[in-house]
Amino acid sequence: MESQCVVAIIRPDVLASLRKALHAIHTHGVTISKVRGFGAHLNPYADDEAIGHLKIEIFVRTADVDTLVAAIMKVAHVGAPGDGVIAVLPVSHFYSVHTMTEVLP
Amino acid sequence: MESQCVVAIIRPDVLASLRKALHAIHTHGVTISKVRGFGAHLNPYADDEAIGHLKIEIFVRTADVDTLVAAIMKVAHVGAPGDGVIAVLPVSHFYSVHTMTEVLP
Amino acid sequence: MESQCVVAIIRPDVLASLRKALHAIHTHGVTISKVRGFGAHLNPYADDEAIGHLKIEIFVRTADVDTLVAAIMKVAHVGAPGDGVIAVLPVSHFYSVHTMTEVLP
Repeated sequence: MESQCVVAIIRPDVLASLRKALHAIHTHGVTISKVRGFGAHLNPYADDEAIGHLKIEIFVRTADVDTLVAAIMKVAHVGAPGDGVIAVLPVSHFYSVHTMTEVLP
Repeated sequence: MESQCVVAIIRPDVLASLRKALHAIHTHGVTISKVRGFGAHLNPYADDEAIGHLKIEIFVRTADVDTLVAAIMKVAHVGAPGDGVIAVLPVSHFYSVHTMTEVLP
Repeated sequence: MESQCVVAIIRPDVLASLRKALHAIHTHGVTISKVRGFGAHLNPYADDEAIGHLKIEIFVRTADVDTLVAAIMKVAHVGAPGDGVIAVLPVSHFYSVHTMTEVLP
């Protein structure tokens, strides 16, 4: 498949750095939503407290996945267990609503 | 795979039209969340301003994906770069909690 | 693929029970977001009212998917059409930002 969806759960305070990093590698089309969570990758020391993180979703060409994952990891990593996770999901089809055609991200 | 997940990032003001369009093609089970974003498909003229869009998620039978994508595109398209995108992701399994069985969407 | 993403759309009032159930099967790393929705699995009796549900996302090893789905279903099921749905999506790659390596969830 030519496109993938990169999903990252990150600390809110790395967003500004992430934007700069994504701009530098010409990644466009980033969707951000506020999430809460519990469990190991979010806050292992506070299992009873749901805490805020950001969920980042980026559709990307398969050839660019590794570069994108490395860029996110570099800014999101502070060396603590709550640093978050990154997942890559396969995408069957991707369309631009503007052009009304199937496109590469 | 018999089911897919259709994800659309669209302008908030097309939601009412989208509901009517989905109702007309008998699509049920639409999940909506508010997202912010930056980058090409969200707002190419304002890279420094995160703007609000809606994320729509619909689980659908593979046979109905093309009809659904066309219906979303028709109402979401206003002919400008911020029109959004539609992605189709494969689904391995889909269950109804009500019937507690694996079902088709 | 060794990892999957389990997505559940559930009633908000089952969250406390879900946390206990997930803790009991040692599932960590649960992401929660508020969603609205319309259509069959969300509220079949009120098609004109978008109502609040929670979206739960959990990255999990493929070998543990069935146990996780059963655990969610058990707490989310109240026997009514608005009980929600569970979908399992394939994951190509999964990384820990803390260790900066590809890992199993």
